[in-house]
Formats: sequence, C-alpha cells, structure tokens
Amino acid sequence: MSSSITTSGEKKLALVTGRANMELAEQVAAELGTELLPTDVYNFANGEIYVRFGESVRGKDVFVMQSHCSPINDWVMEQLIMLDALKRASAKRITVIAPFFPYARQDKKHRGREPISARLMADLFKTAGADRLITVDLHTAQIQGFFDGPVDHLVALPILANYVREKYSAANDLAVVSPDAGRIKVAENWSAALGGAPLAFIHKTRDINRPNQTKANRVVGDVEGRMCVLVDDMIDTGGTIVQAAEACMNAGAKGVIIVATHAVFSGPAVERLSGSVAEEVIITNTLPLEDEKTFDKLTVLSIAPLLGRAVHEVFEDGSVTSLFNI
Amino acid sequence: MSSSITTSGEKKLALVTGRANMELAEQVAAELGTELLPTDVYNFANGEIYVRFGESVRGKDVFVMQSHCSPINDWVMEQLIMLDALKRASAKRITVIAPFFPYARQDKKHRGREPISARLMADLFKTAGADRLITVDLHTAQIQGFFDGPVDHLVALPILANYVREKYSAANDLAVVSPDAGRIKVAENWSAALGGAPLAFIHKTRDINRPNQTKANRVVGDVEGRMCVLVDDMIDTGGTIVQAAEACMNAGAKGVIIVATHAVFSGPAVERLSGSVAEEVIITNTLPLEDEKTFDKLTVLSIAPLLGRAVHEVFEDGSVTSLFNI
Amino acid sequence: MSSSITTSGEKKLALVTGRANMELAEQVAAELGTELLPTDVYNFANGEIYVRFGESVRGKDVFVMQSHCSPINDWVMEQLIMLDALKRASAKRITVIAPFFPYARQDKKHRGREPISARLMADLFKTAGADRLITVDLHTAQIQGFFDGPVDHLVALPILANYVREKYSAANDLAVVSPDAGRIKVAENWSAALGGAPLAFIHKTRDINRPNQTKANRVVGDVEGRMCVLVDDMIDTGGTIVQAAEACMNAGAKGVIIVATHAVFSGPAVERLSGSVAEEVIITNTLPLEDEKTFDKLTVLSIAPLLGRAVHEVFEDGSVTSLFNI
Amino acid sequence: MSSSITTSGEKKLALVTGRANMELAEQVAAELGTELLPTDVYNFANGEIYVRFGESVRGKDVFVMQSHCSPINDWVMEQLIMLDALKRASAKRITVIAPFFPYARQDKKHRGREPISARLMADLFKTAGADRLITVDLHTAQIQGFFDGPVDHLVALPILANYVREKYSAANDLAVVSPDAGRIKVAENWSAALGGAPLAFIHKTRDINRPNQTKANRVVGDVEGRMCVLVDDMIDTGGTIVQAAEACMNAGAKGVIIVATHAVFSGPAVERLSGSVAEEVIITNTLPLEDEKTFDKLTVLSIAPLLGRAVHEVFEDGSVTSLFNI
Amino acid sequence: MSSSITTSGEKKLALVTGRANMELAEQVAAELGTELLPTDVYNFANGEIYVRFGESVRGKDVFVMQSHCSPINDWVMEQLIMLDALKRASAKRITVIAPFFPYARQDKKHRGREPISARLMADLFKTAGADRLITVDLHTAQIQGFFDGPVDHLVALPILANYVREKYSAANDLAVVSPDAGRIKVAENWSAALGGAPLAFIHKTRDINRPNQTKANRVVGDVEGRMCVLVDDMIDTGGTIVQAAEACMNAGAKGVIIVATHAVFSGPAVERLSGSVAEEVIITNTLPLEDEKTFDKLTVLSIAPLLGRAVHEVFEDGSVTSLFNI
Amino acid sequence: MSSSITTSGEKKLALVTGRANMELAEQVAAELGTELLPTDVYNFANGEIYVRFGESVRGKDVFVMQSHCSPINDWVMEQLIMLDALKRASAKRITVIAPFFPYARQDKKHRGREPISARLMADLFKTAGADRLITVDLHTAQIQGFFDGPVDHLVALPILANYVREKYSAANDLAVVSPDAGRIKVAENWSAALGGAPLAFIHKTRDINRPNQTKANRVVGDVEGRMCVLVDDMIDTGGTIVQAAEACMNAGAKGVIIVATHAVFSGPAVERLSGSVAEEVIITNTLPLEDEKTFDKLTVLSIAPLLGRAVHEVFEDGSVTSLFNI
Repeated sequence: MSSSITTSGEKKLALVTGRANMELAEQVAAELGTELLPTDVYNFANGEIYVRFGESVRGKDVFVMQSHCSPINDWVMEQLIMLDALKRASAKRITVIAPFFPYARQDKKHRGREPISARLMADLFKTAGADRLITVDLHTAQIQGFFDGPVDHLVALPILANYVREKYSAANDLAVVSPDAGRIKVAENWSAALGGAPLAFIHKTRDINRPNQTKANRVVGDVEGRMCVLVDDMIDTGGTIVQAAEACMNAGAKGVIIVATHAVFSGPAVERLSGSVAEEVIITNTLPLEDEKTFDKLTVLSIAPLLGRAVHEVFEDGSVTSLFNI
Repeated sequence: MSSSITTSGEKKLALVTGRANMELAEQVAAELGTELLPTDVYNFANGEIYVRFGESVRGKDVFVMQSHCSPINDWVMEQLIMLDALKRASAKRITVIAPFFPYARQDKKHRGREPISARLMADLFKTAGADRLITVDLHTAQIQGFFDGPVDHLVALPILANYVREKYSAANDLAVVSPDAGRIKVAENWSAALGGAPLAFIHKTRDINRPNQTKANRVVGDVEGRMCVLVDDMIDTGGTIVQAAEACMNAGAKGVIIVATHAVFSGPAVERLSGSVAEEVIITNTLPLEDEKTFDKLTVLSIAPLLGRAVHEVFEDGSVTSLFNI
Repeated sequence: MSSSITTSGEKKLALVTGRANMELAEQVAAELGTELLPTDVYNFANGEIYVRFGESVRGKDVFVMQSHCSPINDWVMEQLIMLDALKRASAKRITVIAPFFPYARQDKKHRGREPISARLMADLFKTAGADRLITVDLHTAQIQGFFDGPVDHLVALPILANYVREKYSAANDLAVVSPDAGRIKVAENWSAALGGAPLAFIHKTRDINRPNQTKANRVVGDVEGRMCVLVDDMIDTGGTIVQAAEACMNAGAKGVIIVATHAVFSGPAVERLSGSVAEEVIITNTLPLEDEKTFDKLTVLSIAPLLGRAVHEVFEDGSVTSLFNI
Repeated sequence: MSSSITTSGEKKLALVTGRANMELAEQVAAELGTELLPTDVYNFANGEIYVRFGESVRGKDVFVMQSHCSPINDWVMEQLIMLDALKRASAKRITVIAPFFPYARQDKKHRGREPISARLMADLFKTAGADRLITVDLHTAQIQGFFDGPVDHLVALPILANYVREKYSAANDLAVVSPDAGRIKVAENWSAALGGAPLAFIHKTRDINRPNQTKANRVVGDVEGRMCVLVDDMIDTGGTIVQAAEACMNAGAKGVIIVATHAVFSGPAVERLSGSVAEEVIITNTLPLEDEKTFDKLTVLSIAPLLGRAVHEVFEDGSVTSLFNI
Repeated sequence: MSSSITTSGEKKLALVTGRANMELAEQVAAELGTELLPTDVYNFANGEIYVRFGESVRGKDVFVMQSHCSPINDWVMEQLIMLDALKRASAKRITVIAPFFPYARQDKKHRGREPISARLMADLFKTAGADRLITVDLHTAQIQGFFDGPVDHLVALPILANYVREKYSAANDLAVVSPDAGRIKVAENWSAALGGAPLAFIHKTRDINRPNQTKANRVVGDVEGRMCVLVDDMIDTGGTIVQAAEACMNAGAKGVIIVATHAVFSGPAVERLSGSVAEEVIITNTLPLEDEKTFDKLTVLSIAPLLGRAVHEVFEDGSVTSLFNI
Repeated sequence: MSSSITTSGEKKLALVTGRANMELAEQVAAELGTELLPTDVYNFANGEIYVRFGESVRGKDVFVMQSHCSPINDWVMEQLIMLDALKRASAKRITVIAPFFPYARQDKKHRGREPISARLMADLFKTAGADRLITVDLHTAQIQGFFDGPVDHLVALPILANYVREKYSAANDLAVVSPDAGRIKVAENWSAALGGAPLAFIHKTRDINRPNQTKANRVVGDVEGRMCVLVDDMIDTGGTIVQAAEACMNAGAKGVIIVATHAVFSGPAVERLSGSVAEEVIITNTLPLEDEKTFDKLTVLSIAPLLGRAVHEVFEDGSVTSLFNI
C-alpha cells in the first residue's frame, strides 16, 4: 500500500448565465453542443438576489455569462454573487463573459474627484472570484489592462464588416465615418476591412454666438456622393450618431448606414434611429433587445458563434488570437 | 536651507452620502454641526451611476453614508463607486456607514453551491476603498468578522428599550418573545434590558398530516396575561412577525407590541402590520420610509444621534465601546 | 522537433497529519485505502516545531489533518508550518482538515477591543498556504464566511441522530433540549431529524435577590415525562450541559442523554459528566480522547467515514453537498 | 502616570530623485523653497544599483522623482529600489513623480501574446512601495486606472498653449493638426485652448499598388493658408510628425509649428526635426535634453513650476484639480 | 456652516505586552516614562487564549511586546491575537516588538520539503495586523527581508562589548572566537568592537573512523595565551558553545568567557554552562530567565534601555539608525 | 444532452528565454529534447523592450529563462515583461529560471535607509506573474524565503567538485579556503565533498597605522604545502579572490585553484584572474561569457544538464530534492 492515490485528470466545462440575456447564453450553449447548467436565481422581496447552482461545479472550468444592460447594477451584482458561489463551490477556474463591459465609458477621470468605474468593475470581478475575462469590443482597449489576469478581447468587426461588404460594396462607393474625433481609430480599422474606403469624422464645434446652447456638426473629410458607413462601438441614446448621419447627408452623402456592436438603446434611441436618415441600422446581440425596441430598418447579427468559438478555444487551450484576424 | 519642509498636522472630517436616505444623512450632519459635502450623483440613460465630489476631499477623514433599501443593488453600487472616487481623490481614511448591512441574511451557505453574499459585500467595500465600517444591529454579529478591518457595530437596543420601558413597563407585566428560535439571543438581551422580563419563542412545526402545506406556530414559554414585546432585528415582508403576534394572543397574551431596528417593509409588510393584532410597531430610520409606508400605530425613532456620536468618537479617536453600554 | 512537450495529466492525492490525532488520520487513510505520507515532525529543545515530508508532494492534491485539542496553540502552529512546507514543496492544492475549528467561539467581538480569533485562524491558514478547508459542525455556520475560499462544512448530525433514533425512539417519547438560548437552531435540526420531537431550551436567569452570585436554569418548553436529548456542538468543561441535564430532570423529564460532536473535555468535564444525571453521553472522535478521559456511560462514534467520503469527493470532483443530506 | 504618551502631529515633506534628471529635480526643489534630500546612488561593477538615503526619512511625506528617458530600464529599476529603501526606512507616505510615464505606449495588447507593460509599471511601483503617483500628459488617460491608488494627472497644455497663443495667434489663422487619427482628442483640447481653431488630422493610407512598401499621408480637414499647430504628447524618433508637417505644407499650409510635452528624441529625431519644414519645435523638460540634442528652432518650456505646485498641493492637502484648469 | 470639521492632529503612544516577559515590558515602559496599557489576557480551559484591552487604543501608535521563549507557540499565538484585537479596535499603527525573533533558525530550507518558518512568522505577523517590526540581533540579518514593511533591527553588541571591554581588555590579550564556521561574521564585528582582536573559529570535523558517532572540534586560528571571547547570537542547549570553550582551552587559551544576546537556555543548558570551563557567561534579558536558571558566573545585562530608545525614536520619527553605531 | 463537456487533461511544457543568454537556453532545450518557443523581443528606439510570443502559450507550463548579467536592469525588466505577457496570454503556470539571482548581494540592510533589493526582485517576479522560481547557488540561502512560493534551489557543487576531485585530489593534499569569513559555510560543504579536506579562511584586518587605506589578508587555518581550492559563489571584479590566492601562496600553499559558480567578471576581473597566481579558474555558464572574457586557464562547465533535469522533474511532478544530493 502506498501513500498516494492516483486518478486520471479530466477537464470539464460548464456554462452558467445570469438573467439579463438568457437567449444569448442558450445560443452559445447550442454552439458548444451543450446546455446551460441549471441555476436557481431570483430576487428576495427587498431586491436582494439569491443564487444557487443546481448541479455540482466542483473542479469544473466555468464560464459565467451576463449581459450588462439596464438595470445594469442588478446584473453586475448578480454576476458577482454567482462568482462568489462558484468560488465557494470549488470551481476550478472561473471566466467572466461580459460581452458589453459595464461602466466602460468611465475609463478615466475626466475631471478631478471622479471614479474610474471601469477599473472598479474589473477589481470587483476579481474580488468575487473571476480568474479570467472574455469581452467584446471594449470602449477603449486599455480596459484590458484594468484586469489583473487574462482578458480575451473579441472583435465583432469581421461579422459586421462581412455583412456590410456583401450588401453595400458592389453598388456603392463607401466612406467610413466616425461620429466622434476620439473614436477614429475604430473607423480606421473599418476602412481597412472595407478595402481602404476613405475616412471622415464629425467635429463638433461650438457656435461662437451661442456658446452654451448649440453645436455645429462639421464633417471633416470627403463624403460627397458616397454611401457613409457610420461606425461606433455602441449606441446609447442615439443622439450623437443620428446627428452625425444628418451631417453626412448635409455634406452631400449618397446615403448612410449605421453600424455598432452594442445596442444599449436607452431612452429615445429607438425613436431617433427609426426616424433617422439612415437606411439601415446594424447591430449585434451582445445586449438583449426587447421586442418593442426592434424596428423596420434594424438588423441584428448574432455574436453567439464568436463567443462559442472563444469559449471552445479557451477550454481546449487553443488560440483565441486566431479569432481576431479578419 | 534644509532638505525638509514641516507643517502642522490637522485632521479634517467630511461626511458624504449616496441618494438612498438623504434625510438621515442630513440629520447626522446636523448632529455633528456640519453639512454634507456637496456631491454630484446621477444615473446615465442606461442606468450607470455617475459620481463627482464638489469639493476637495484630499487628506480628509471621510464618512460615506448609504442606506441599503430597495433598489438595493443600485445603492450598493453607488456607494462602491463613491468609495473608488474618494480613494482616487486622496481621501486619507474612508469609513463606510451602512446602518443596515446589505445581504446580511446570506451570511452562510444554507446549502451547497450558495454564495455567502454578506462576506462578498464586505470584500467589495474593501476592494473599492473602505478602510473601516460603521453599522447598526447586524443580522448576526459574526458579520463583523467578514470585514478585514475595524467595524464599529452599534446597537439600537438602548434607544428602543428606553421607549418601551417608559411607555409600557409601569402598567404591564412584560414578556419578551422571539419570533424565531434562531434569534433568541437578541431576545435575551431585551429581557435583560427590561429588568429580567420572561422569555419565550415561537417554534414552527409542520403539521404531520399536511407536511408540505402549513405550519403551526407554537409559543414555547409562558406569555399568558402578559404584554408581549416581539423583538427582531428587521421586518421584511412582515409575515413571520405578524403570525408570531397572533400566536402570542392565542396563547393568552394581554397584548403585543412589535419592535425592530430595520424597517425593510417589502411587499405586503405595511398592510400586514397595520392590520395585525399588535398595538404598536416601533422601528428606527436606518432605512428610509416613504410616506405611503407609514400607518397609524407605527412609531419611528431616529438613529441619527447614535450615528452622530459614533462618527464623532471615531474622528476624535475617542471610545465607541462606551456607546454600546445600555 | 516542436517547441512544446506534452504529457498526460494525472491527479495524485496525499494525506498528511499533525501529531494531535494520529489515530483519526490513520482511520481516514484506511477509509481511503491509502496510507499517511511519511512525515518527520518533532519539537526542538525550545519548543519550536520542525517538519519535513518524507516523500515528494510535488504536484499532489494534499489534505492536511490536525485536531485542535489542547495544547491547541501548538497544534495550530504545527499545521501552519506544515502548510508552509507543502506550499514551498510545490503541492498543487492544499486542503486543511480541521474537524474542530480552533477558536470557533471567538467568532465575534462580544465587547469592544476584543479579537475575532476565528477569523484570524482562517486568515492564518490562508497565509500559510491553505487553498481550501474541510471542517465539521462549526460553532456558528458564519465561520464559513471567514475563509476566502471553498469550505466544505460537514455535519455529524446524521451519524449521531441515527444512533439516538435506533436506541431510544422506540421506547421513549423524546424531547430535544438546547442548553443555551443561542443554540436552539441546532436543536431545531435535531427535532426534524427525530421526527418532529418537541423542543425546549434552558433559560438562565439571575435571581433578583442575589444578582451577581447565582443563576437559575429554567426549562422553557415542555419536557415532562419525556426522554430529553440534550444537544450541543461541543462539550468543554461540561458545566452548562450538566446543569441543563439537572434542570430537565427537575422539570419532570423521564431521563436525559447528552449528545455533542466535539468532546473538548477540559478540566472537570469527565468528572462532571460521569457523575451527572445523564444516562449516556454520545460524542464523536473529532478530537482525540485519552484513555483516562473515557468513562462508563460514554459512547464514541467515529467521524472517519464521513471525513473519508468528503476527501474522496473533493479529490474526485464529486459532490460534497450530497453528504449533507440526512 | 498614565498609559499613553502624547505628542503633537507634524507633517514633513522630503523630495528625493534618481539620477536621470537631476536638473529638473533641483528646479522643483527650488520652486518649493527646499533642497533635495541627500542620497547616495551608484552602480556596482556589474550594473546593479545601490541606493542609500543620507538623512532620516522616518515619518516623512516623500516624493520620489525620476525621468524615464534612455537607459529607461535602469531608471525604472533605480526608482523601484529607492521606493523599497523608503518603505523599509519608515517613510509615512511615498509618491512617485514620473513626469513621462514609462512604457506608456504599451497600454493595451495590440495583438495576442503581448504584455501590457504600462499596467506592469503601475504594479511594479505599487509593489515596491508607492502609495501615489504624479505624472504629466499620459499617452492615454486610461493609464490612470492602471494604478490602484491616487494619480494626479497634470497637463502641460496650459503652459504650451499660452506660449503658442502669445507668439502666433495674432498674426496667423491657426489650425490644429493631429499627426495620427487615434490622437485627435488631444487636438480637440488644443482647438478649444486656441479659441476654436479648426481641426485636421493625418490619415495614413496604403498605396494599393505598393501595399507593403509605402504610405501616403493625407490631410483630412482644411489647413490651406493656415499656420498649422501640429500637436502630440511625445516625439520619439520624429518620423511621423516630420512627415505630418510636410503633408500640411503640401496641403497648402502657410507654416507649421510642432508642439509636444515629452521630448524622447531617439535616434534620428534631432536631425529630422532640425531639418524639417517646421518653423519651431516647442517641448517641455519632462525628459532631460543633452546639449547635443538642442538645435536652433527648439524651444524648451519648464515643467518645474507645475510639478512644484502639484507637490505643494498634495503635501498641504490642497486641491490639485484646480491646476487642471486652463 | 461648512462641509468640513477640523481638529488638531495629535499622536499618542501605547505600549502593550503579552504574558511571556512582563518584567522586560515594565522596564521598557519605565524607560519611556509611561505605564503598560491595562490588558486582560488569560487562557480558556482548552488552552485558547483570550485578550481584551482595558482602555481605548483608537488612533494610537501601539507597540506590542512579546518574548518568544518556551512555550513559544503560545506566545506567538498570543501576540497574533493581540494584533488582531488592536487592528479591529482601530489602532493607527501597530509595531511588533520581538526581541528574539521566533523560529529564526528555520530561515531557509536546509533540505527539500522543509518549511521556512521564519518567513512564515513574518507573514503571520503581517496578516494579523503588524505594520512594523522591532527586533534584536536576528539569527541572520536576511530575516529583515522576510517582512514586507519596516524592520528596526537593533544590535546588542554595544551593550555587551562595553561590558567585556571594561572588564577584560586591560589585563588580557583577547581573541574573538566563533563557535561555528557559519557565524564568523558576528565574530568579525566583535573583533572590530574590541580593537581588532584576532579571530578564530571552531571547525567541526568528523572522525573518519567513527563517521556517525563523534566530531572533533578543531580551533582554526591562534588563541594560545589569550582570553577567548566566545560569541554567538543565542545559547539554546549550550552544547556547541560549551564544547567550543573546551576546544579553546585545549588549544592553549588563557581563559574563556561566553557572550550571547539571547539566553534560550533549554534543557541541560544551565547545567552545562555552570559546569563549563568558562569564567563568565554574559547575556541580555531579551528572553525571561526564571530564578532557577541563574547561576554564579552568569551576568545579565538589560536590553530595556535600547528598546526604550528605539520605541521613542520610532514614535517621534527620529532616527533609529543612530542607535546602531557602536 | 448534458450541461457539462469533458475533455482529457494534458500538460504541455514550453520553454522561453530572454536575450541575455540564448546559448544556455538552447542547451537546456536540447537537454529536454525540445526547442525554444519562438519569441519576438526587441528594443524600441528609446530603449523600451517589446515582447511577443510567436505561438500560443494558453494552458501551458512555461519556464522563462534569463541570465542576469550586465546590463542587468534590462534583463530583469525584459523577464518581467515576458512574465506579464505570459500571464495575460493564459499560461497555466509560470516558472522563472534565474540561474544567477539578480541583486542577491543586497539581501539585507547593511546600514539604515538601504533597500533589500533581493527581496524586491522576488516581489517583482511575483507581481509580474511568476508562480515559481528555479535558481542556482544563491548568494545566501535565505533568499529562498524572499519569494512567496516554491523555489527550487539547485546547487552546482556536485558538478564543480567532481571536476576538482578527478583532476586534483590524487596528486595533491587539498585544502578548502574561503576568501571571506562570512562565506565559510560554502567552504564547509566543499570540505565535505572533497573527503574532509581541511578548512581555512581569509581574515581581512586593518593595518592600525593606516586604518583607512589598506588591509592585510591573513590566512586563518593551515594551508602549508597544500593545493588550495579557493571557493566562492561568484566572482565579480575578482579583487578579493585574487588577493586571497596570493595570501594562500604567501602562507606556503603548494598551489591555488579558484572555483565559483557565477562568473560575473566585471571590469578588471579577466585581467586579474588571468594574471593571478591561480593555476586554474573553474566556473559554470550560469552567466554568458563573451569570447574576449575567456583566457587560457579558464575552464567553463555547463549548468545546462542540471537545469534540464530540474525542469523535467518540475514538469513531471518528480523530485527535485534528489538532484541536491552530491
């Protein structure tokens, strides 16, 4: 009799999800050929969230999905509580999947005495038990550095650009337009993906006579006679991008399509977009879209195949880098 | 000329608050003879919270109040974001004041694969920047040990017991009743505070013939002819405590008053309490109470003087222990 | 030739123990069908403890047993030193097995300026190298939350209750009695395990005429004519529980048996218990029992099968939760 | 006799520096009306760095300056070693002053399997003992979030813009030009500081016929007849900015001046800049400039007054935010 | 009314002690002109230690003395528990005073699968709440680096060397002898302190004919006709040093005196030393000495003045380095 | 369909290296029968180091070699940056191989206000992502305790001693000589490895008449007529050891050979050694040796087989301890 017992090492994957976007989680599970691990999640009367996993997660490689739409603080807290439960239930490795990283826009102090909430989120995930992160199209790529561990930063550009190329590039001269000076880098990537289409951006200037009241949106770059592909990482209330679309048309564009990864669609977004000059609005389902938020010219492409392949590569110790290539 | 510059060391206190219970925060500021530090807090369109302090907090001893009522996850996140902003703005020391500790009831794993959310909350506060905690009447005192740092655990018992003693002890034989076997220790403290009043508790037993459907509430201990003081740390939906009051009456009590520190008052609580057999319901304002949640026999005692004295002692390096004594 | 070498992943278990309770460790090894890993442990002349493992632990899943009886500080320190040696010897995962968690009764500040030693113990284990904990019948379940990692909290209730049920329930009407108001929750679990036996507890009250000198033990609840099962998590000096047994008899009980998981048995415990009114005293061997501490009416049930199954489940990534069910 | 000794609390400031930019450190000391704390720093024969402070730093608020020019790894390591020595010598608070943050350009993973060296630097500073950071014009503002503690992020824009405004705005129509699409945000701030001067940027496009070999620099925006203010945070080898200057002239600009905070000036930078079409090159002394790197049309503005005021505000618990305002 | 309250900053010192060496602690308090802070410390029946401070320590600069003699694990644990209580009671800064650092001889892995217990002790102190350490004559100076924070490493050499010089140097030619090759560095310091007295060491060699059984002690260096000062940091069982003394006499020494800082005096130490060839044995009181462990030729010098001065310098932000100079 | 996906667990090893000693890394790879993982490493114009791995390291057990010769700070930083990239690229376990530990001589504070740079290096490795360390012949063994994790401390003594024994022991009476009192312990190990050869050390004494200027080197111990084996862990500028060799000859030695593990060979080392009285200088290749640093009587033994075996044992969870035995 010896002083050691040996067993074969096996790796097991489990996929769990919070309640924000069950549909996307089920799509990812289907891509992987598995099912979501049964999970009991509900709110107590005072709003506190209760979580319990229905099967053992001991020793498993667990991926925890959550979409961070409104009510965003509930969904963040729910995911944190799930992480705590997984950690205490002896999961072997825990990967947060946050297709839309919460509080990504508060990624620096714009002025003194502000928080850097995106860093805070990264720290909260870590504290609660996350070993790794998978996310899509961060507002700024530097947020990768906020997390003290591996971050697989996926890009939806290939999915979106393939769609645009196939539908629009044959019949049109395209121009890529950034609605904001600070986000031209994204537009440059689009320009490259669309065969070197020319680039423009919207420069907001204050009217000197009415300094506090209004802004003029000026197109910097040449869009005349072109089909403008207005690109951004997210659409929140839609104000900026709808005004940008108008500025393109005013500058002589042939037409405008709007493309973004994350459809936050807060407040007047749907009304603005559906009534805008844009011919088509193309997004992904990183965030769930209630039925009343769809409209005629909206196209939703699924991010599930990309997430599924990423989870597969991470679990099998393959290469996620290969997924980045357009 | 020397290689060192010297200045006198001074300590400065600042009191800030989240939006959950502005009124309590203002009362505490008044107790201290100061004002709340101006703070800009609002929600973005998608629910993300923005915080900025209106004055410098550099080098200050800052106390951050928040009441954790519904929507509880918003209020927790708001306080965490305030902590992050204070840490990055060079506050010298940061004390969380959470009169009602969030998720206190999830203080252990009742079954496997559950979280210990109360520990998680303590870790989140720490991660976001809290050096210390002040709280009132924890659901279980062990939660003190969840935080890696000083916790000043205040007790509302003296405030509540004084009121009960003055109003009820002359004309009645009192009995202290715990609505739940697991919380008799609190009742024992009340018994001591009310001059050794006898103790009882409610034992819930399953009816053997209808095992899944109903429970009988049996009073263990003698309450006959006595005015029952039903005590608990919190009232959430009020179901348990209202049934306990009825059980007391059925057991021959002369009357019942209900006393609790934290008025969570979820769902049917107000309806149940106002329609109950209890003569009076006595609570504190650790949680805010909207006007529609008040009712005739409800008495609210203010916790502000206790919090004010605690902040004063902490700031002045006095003794908080002395406040514990009844 | 490639830039990577591949080998099959295997998992190996090793069981090591401190010197406090070699017998229990050997029983657990036997349950697992293995032997303890040879370990060299002794004290230097000045009391410092020396540890060295006799075989490689590199890459192994190591379980470190220790019983925390007197001299308790030596046994804690010995286990901490073993953890350090394992960590530095490249053990893959280290699980502390502490059947009786040390300093569990100091789980909160009863008064200001006290330590929370149970939290300290959890932190010391973590610092020294523990990844996980296995323990039995914590004094309060909240101690699970003191450790920042997975805790498998085993319960001895099924083992003890089976014994009591088989021996006593046919011929007697049972009552479950808690010797202390604060521990009725344990008694409630016993009540359920014994088919809904009625519940009582001992309420200690001060004699008003002799406030500082004596206490009266009053049974709250009905025990008349019943065989009382006095239950607690541990017996230290035995004073409380022996007085509780007397109180039961004074209240008209037919007889008393005493049941507890942890037999600390300090000072006069053996004398008190053997001379008490109790018919039988039933414990487990979470703590070692020297021969001179046994007595006629003492029954010791072994905890080794439970620990063995828990280690097996943890090693094989099975479910420990299933062991919790009665 | 009591059990406590009391003394008045005083705060003492000390300023120390590594060897990279002694002149700037002395200027800052002069601004503060003090002297640098005497420090013994030298290299051992094998290149290891030795540090010892010549006076006690016990209890002091110490600011540790270093400029991170070439040999940059030596200067980073020297500062880390100084931090370790200060920590172990009981300094009360330690602030790193890194006017040019090292490795700021590696602030994200551009491709898989890259480091995020800027985050690593922040972590190294923290590990070695830094409590706080003061830095100037970070390459991206998100780097603030890489450090787990307060960062005072100073901006040189007011110093530089005042100079440009006074010298050039009367006689010229100005245009602000960004040499890179990704950095237009900086140019927008300049545009605001220069009274709303129009904005342009250089878009680098591949020549489709020679895809791997050459790039065309196209000016997006209107610069014709205007004096172009080419702005960037740093000038390294000068290639990009000198080509950008030429592109402006080709696009019909009246003239070009080049402005940047950090003069890295590697390799051919001086040759390129002095031979460029730019009329003037305006920088600050965040990095030291050897005599052979100066040239006729170079203007160096001192950052010392800004750093001195920041240190003063930090030490006196004043407001650094006020220094941000233009 | 403003949003900030200001008070003067004062610093308060408090000195507390464990039970191992009350006398030394009282001497240090007397040196400082204060009294020990009243502390309640005792053991529960099962050996667990209870601690409570009798006065507020909030905001104080607390020094926690303990001598780590036998039962050493109790005294370590007692000090850790005191640290935890101080941390949770809001002490401002906590300094461990361990005149004899526990487990200092296990400062490296001599063989595989051993602990590095001295590092473990440093980590335990840190985890429990220590900010700083004060210690005397570490077994190896590298142990300073085991603690992640300031260590004031005091040396008793000046106290001991003054005594030896005054009593022995006039009438004798001195030689400094190290009982062990690995500790000659200490002897070199002594040689310098005694005006360049020649140096020797004892080399233990195995007798080739009896390899496992005996060792010969050979004096390397010249001691003939000289008074040998045998120096070491500690005397444990005394075996090595007493044999070294004999080896010196065998090598023609005129006489031998034994000097050491730490009098561990385990097992046969007193018998061996009192019966040895040494004329005098000179130690300090870093460890307590029971009356039965004193003997005729033993001289005990007090370390209290050195500790008192160190505490004073640390509290007043003076220079401890100055105390190091002989 | 189930909620879990299972795959077999495999372990993969990868070996990467910095640029300091490519040759040694290739030798180690050859010993393991593999190749170095392709890595892109170069310096930017301003000296910042860029790293990218050419193949996936996801899930691999990665060993990161670097020799810490001059420019030592570059090589340390390069290794730290490689660690960061590996951590973020999801390497499963990361082991630093530092055959010559950087800054090992600054392993304690020799005087106040100095750093403990060797501890700092250990912390930097940990912070950047190292889980484990492999090193050879630490300057002091205590440095093992500076790293919070497993350290495999290899010894070159068997390799060096075998060579010396075979070449010199037959024809000579050997003596082992330590060039410094503080390093006699190493010489004692050599004495044992060479069959009990007698021991001596060099004692440096100040000439009383010229106290600051010169030192006399006196041999303590008997070397007359013997072949002296002068042993040390490293040779830096060679001054001490060359003077020691002369002192041996002056003391009547028959000859001297110099042996050391680490050939730092700074400044005048080569000139001194080649011109010294030593017959042979024997070193290993833990540090690279440029061609101009070799000389006639220099012998270089390869450390690669030892490192290769250590990596193999670590990867395969074998025993490294066995490699320690001579």
